[in-house]
Formats: sequence, structure tokens, C-alpha cells
Amino acid sequence: MPESSPPSGEGRSVAFRDRFLRACRREPVDRTPVWFMRQAGRHLPEYRTLRGDRDVLTMCRTPELAAEIALLPVRRYDVDAAILFCDIMVPLAGIGVDVRIVKNQGPTVEEPFRKAADLDRLRPLEPELDVPYVLESVRLLRKELRIPLIGFAGAPFTMASYLIEGGPSRDHVLTKTVMHREPDVWNRLMSALGDLVLTFLRSQVDAGAQAVQLFDSWAGTLDTDDYERSVLPTSRHILQGLADLDVPRIHFGVGTGDLLPLMRSAGADVVGVDWRTPIDAAWERIGPDAGVQGNLDPAACLGPWETVVYKALDVLRRIDARPGHVFNLRHGVLPETSPDTLARLVDLVHERTERSGGESEDG
Amino acid sequence: MPESSPPSGEGRSVAFRDRFLRACRREPVDRTPVWFMRQAGRHLPEYRTLRGDRDVLTMCRTPELAAEIALLPVRRYDVDAAILFCDIMVPLAGIGVDVRIVKNQGPTVEEPFRKAADLDRLRPLEPELDVPYVLESVRLLRKELRIPLIGFAGAPFTMASYLIEGGPSRDHVLTKTVMHREPDVWNRLMSALGDLVLTFLRSQVDAGAQAVQLFDSWAGTLDTDDYERSVLPTSRHILQGLADLDVPRIHFGVGTGDLLPLMRSAGADVVGVDWRTPIDAAWERIGPDAGVQGNLDPAACLGPWETVVYKALDVLRRIDARPGHVFNLRHGVLPETSPDTLARLVDLVHERTERSGGESEDG
Repeated sequence: MPESSPPSGEGRSVAFRDRFLRACRREPVDRTPVWFMRQAGRHLPEYRTLRGDRDVLTMCRTPELAAEIALLPVRRYDVDAAILFCDIMVPLAGIGVDVRIVKNQGPTVEEPFRKAADLDRLRPLEPELDVPYVLESVRLLRKELRIPLIGFAGAPFTMASYLIEGGPSRDHVLTKTVMHREPDVWNRLMSALGDLVLTFLRSQVDAGAQAVQLFDSWAGTLDTDDYERSVLPTSRHILQGLADLDVPRIHFGVGTGDLLPLMRSAGADVVGVDWRTPIDAAWERIGPDAGVQGNLDPAACLGPWETVVYKALDVLRRIDARPGHVFNLRHGVLPETSPDTLARLVDLVHERTERSGGESEDG
Repeated sequence: MPESSPPSGEGRSVAFRDRFLRACRREPVDRTPVWFMRQAGRHLPEYRTLRGDRDVLTMCRTPELAAEIALLPVRRYDVDAAILFCDIMVPLAGIGVDVRIVKNQGPTVEEPFRKAADLDRLRPLEPELDVPYVLESVRLLRKELRIPLIGFAGAPFTMASYLIEGGPSRDHVLTKTVMHREPDVWNRLMSALGDLVLTFLRSQVDAGAQAVQLFDSWAGTLDTDDYERSVLPTSRHILQGLADLDVPRIHFGVGTGDLLPLMRSAGADVVGVDWRTPIDAAWERIGPDAGVQGNLDPAACLGPWETVVYKALDVLRRIDARPGHVFNLRHGVLPETSPDTLARLVDLVHERTERSGGESEDG
């Protein structure tokens, strides 16, 4: 192993490894950084043990527990970033919206938003009062971590979809109907959610998060015109409202192959790419002045190791060592995934992208 | 109205209007043809009345009823094609697989395919013995219709997904796992389904269908590599196996923005385009030697009329009168849609695309 290689084992507890942040800024790195969406989740037996029969919101509201969960994959895998353990509905629950996270189903809202008067159920977020446990979780993690911590929020369109549909939806019909039929209500809803998310992410960075990820899970259900007119302005408000904090801003959603240039234009430094779009074609659409994150199909990790190797190396081949790539799945780790596969995958990507030049430690 | 315009009202009952077939062959047309996926479905009050509490398979197996259902939208709308009323699971049910169509859920398979021995539950389709009602429905429709009849089949990947998952799936994890872990089982399954679908579509054409649509609903869940290696060969086997019949072959799936060139290469004359991809960008990917079908977001039809107009005209503007476009939604009509909106939409597209030149009748 060359001297410039990143420390591992004991070494990892002393040096800060910044290759994830460098890649987000499209700077040269010693190895391509790797992390996985939902790396702290159900696929880990220790997560299932810690969780017991607690619901997700309870876990998010218990800083010691949330921090411990975020650390689980960092102990197991040689990943280059940790991500806050936080459900996208946490800030809404924080201001009193009747959110529940139903096991194997997802977020539900007891009384969905259907009329203009429902907007009165939203108010500005006061992070230290409404979600102090999130900030405490960030602070605890920063003390422990020697890799960057990514802050996290759901984007307004995705939140609006849960609020209006009352739960997960395949077609997002009610959401689109409000968008088309009641543009005034829609715009006020998006504006309120935009402010909420911006405040939430700023508070995470203030508490110590070194990057942020704005997760617009369901944006891919929109045509480019609806996205541009009814969603993009709010996402831009959030991402550009973070610009002065000088942390990398990652933005992504599922099935967004044709939204990639617009998502970049919202102010993302790194755009997450769905496995459905080959990552080189995606980067073409995003343009040279942003990085890319992705994009292995998480289902491929359930195949034999040879499939994982073939597909991971195909991603790397398409990137062709260009600076600005963060390796990830797209989207989250499936619960059926073997931790051993992910451990091997991290090492594979690191080994295959080892370069001279590019620094990975700053002390 | 110019003399070359298509007949309407009484006239429609005597002249055959072939603009749909001409557009599929990229020939000039007097007006852009229009039809809607699921035009014969739950959004029509007369459909709900006819259906009563019958299940879908029962309706498909009753030729008079299935034909009547396919005619409902033709009576209401000035559409340019009718489509066979047939569930994608019909040929599988025809050879004895334990399929049920559960209301508001979709196809389920009592005992999902999980092991190599399950392949023995498939056998070649003998259309006149196994699905005589489908052929009878085609013959009844041909007697009534003065517009082309589109035959219909689900594609092997989508069928395989229902067989393996046992019902609708979001992530298609089990399906992909078989694909990656048991390529031999996968290939035998796809091969058997490919032969089944080819036989089924050929029998529909023999009975009178004037075009066919191969519906790979879930192909969009695959990355381009999996699609190309594990699905495309079978779709190609089917589409190219229809070539000698000289009927237009339409091929489509949901969320397939990055699969479009491959779907074209399978042998499609017309490729269906998801609303997520602007239709001009989609046509670029498909190439000039095939037509396009699409691509209004069906949810837009729930908005105010102005939204429908804006979005429909945007599709037409992007097509720019280039021959080879079939106007459609993408994908099916939502149950909440008002029939009035669809009636107006057909007329709007016809009015706005009226051209001199291009013939629409051959008798």
C-alpha cells in the first residue's frame, strides 16, 4: 500500500479523511469516495437490534440513538462519509404536523392537506426549539467522526406529496391536481416548505454538518415543464440560500434522467444520478461544472459478487477518472442486502480508483 | 371543413380512417392521429356500469363484452384507433397459470414462480384452444370498427415480474435477483414467455388486428445494461417475429427515457414515450427511422382545460409536424379523468394539426 493511501483501522480514528469533500468540489482525490444511501438501515443486523420496536421518529428524536445508528455503517465499512439519521418528515413533525412513519409503508399524514386552510398548519421552523434532537445528533456525530457528516432534508415537492396524498403514492395524482388547479395554494405551500427546509439545513450546518443532501424522492414523476415551473424555484431558493455556508450541496431524486440539467441549475454542486441513466450520459446532461453521485442499481447488490464487480467497474469506466465523482448506489440500500457485499464493494471501488496525487487527509 | 377531412358522425360508419396506420409508417397524414392508453376503462361511467362486479379476466373472456368495452371510447371520442380490451396476464391464465386480477391492486399469482421447477407450469400457447375469446373479440371488433384495431400483449419482462413477485412490485427486487443469480432459469423463463407472446400477437393479427402494441410496463426499472442483456433479446424475438405480418409494432414502457434507443432496436416501428422525457429529445434518442407515440402526462388531464391545452400544444410544437407522431397519453387514462376533457383533447389535437396533403381514407 503506498504511503499516500488513506489510513484504516486505528489510523482512521485520528486523521480526518476529506476525499468526499474534495470530490464534491471536483478536486483530485487519492481514491474515489464511497458512501451508500440508507447505509444506516435495515440491512444491518445491529440496526435491527438497536431499533427493536421503536418507530423511526422516536429514533430520530433520541440523539444518542440516532448518532449511534449513523455510526454503525462507519464501523463496518470503509465509507468516506456518514449521513445524519433523519426521516424527511422530521421537520414537519417538529412543527406539529400529524406525521407517522408506518413500518413497511412510509410516512403518513393523519389528516392530509387538501384545502387552502391547511396551510395554516405550517409555521416557520425554530430548530433549537422544534428539532433540538437533530442538532444534538449532529454535534454528537461530529465528535466521533473522522469522515465528513452529510446533513439531510427532503425537498418541498416530496414533502408536499406526502402532505397532500396522506402517504406514499404511485401516481401523485392529488399532488399534481393541486399544482395544476390551485396554483396559488401550491405556491404558498411550496414557499412555506422551502423556508422550512432551508432553515432546517442551515441549522444542521451550523451544528457541524459538512455537506448537505436535498432529497427530492418523487420529483421524477414530473414532466420537465411542471418541474421547472412548479418545483425548481423552491429548490433553487433552498440550495442558493445555502451558498454562503460553503458546504457541498448534493441534490437528487429517483427517475430524474431528464430533470438532471434542471436539478443542477437549482444550485447543486453534486447531482445524484439514477441507475436508469448511464452515469456518463448523465454527466453530459448535468454539465462539466458540477459533480455526480451514483449510480449502481441497489438490486445489483443482491446478485452474485461477479455482477456487483461488473456493474461497479462499468460505472468507474464511464467516469474515466474524471474528478468530481462520488460513488453511491441509487437509490438506497435494499433491506435484503448482505453487509459483506457492501464491505467488499467499498474496498473494490477504493482499490480500483487508487491514484497518486490528490490528497485525502488534512490531519 | 376541407373535403379531404375525415368523415365524422354518420360518415365514420362507412369510411375506414387510416391516419393512425399512416402515421405509424411515418407517412403524411391529414391530422395527427390520437388514441389513449386505457381509453376503455374506469374513467368511463358506461364502463363501470357494464363491468358491474365482474372481474377483469371474466370480462376479457366474454367476447361480446370485451368488444363492447373496446367500442365505448370509439363512440364517445373521435379517436383514430381502438385497442383490444385484454389484460396482460390473459395468455398466462389461458395456459393455466393461477392468475387473478385483484381490484385496485393488479395482477397477482397465487403461487409465485421462485424455482426452476416452476418453469414446468408454462407450456406453448394454442390460441384457438387457450384464448379463443380473445380472437373472437378481435373478429367482432373488426366488423364494427372503421378505424384500426390495435392488438395487445404484455412483454416478457413485465410478465416475468408478476410471475416472480406474485403481484405488483415497486422495486422488482425478486425479479432482478433471479435475473442476476439464476441466469439460466431467467433465460428459460424469458424464452418461454417470448414464444407465448409472439404466438399470442400473431394470432391477434391473423384474426384481424391491424397493429400491435407490446407493453413492457416495468422495463423502466432496469439499467440499460440489464435491459440490453436480459430483456432486449426476447423483445427482439417477438417484434422481429412479427415482421412478415406487415403491421405496425408499437413498443413502450414507463420510465424508459434512457432505454428508448434499445427499445427501438428491438424492432419497433413506433416507440411510446414517457411524459418524463420531452418528446423531441425522445425522438432524437430513438432516431429518425421510427415513429413516436405520446406523451402527455395523464395527470395533466385532471387540471383545468388551460393546462391540458398548454401541455398538448407543447407536445405538438416539439413534434413540429414531422410525420410519424401518434398522439397519446403516457401512460394510461387515470380513473379520475373527465370524459369531456378527453373528448375536447382529441378535437384539439385534430384541429391544431389539420394539414392539406396526406390522405386519411382508403374507402
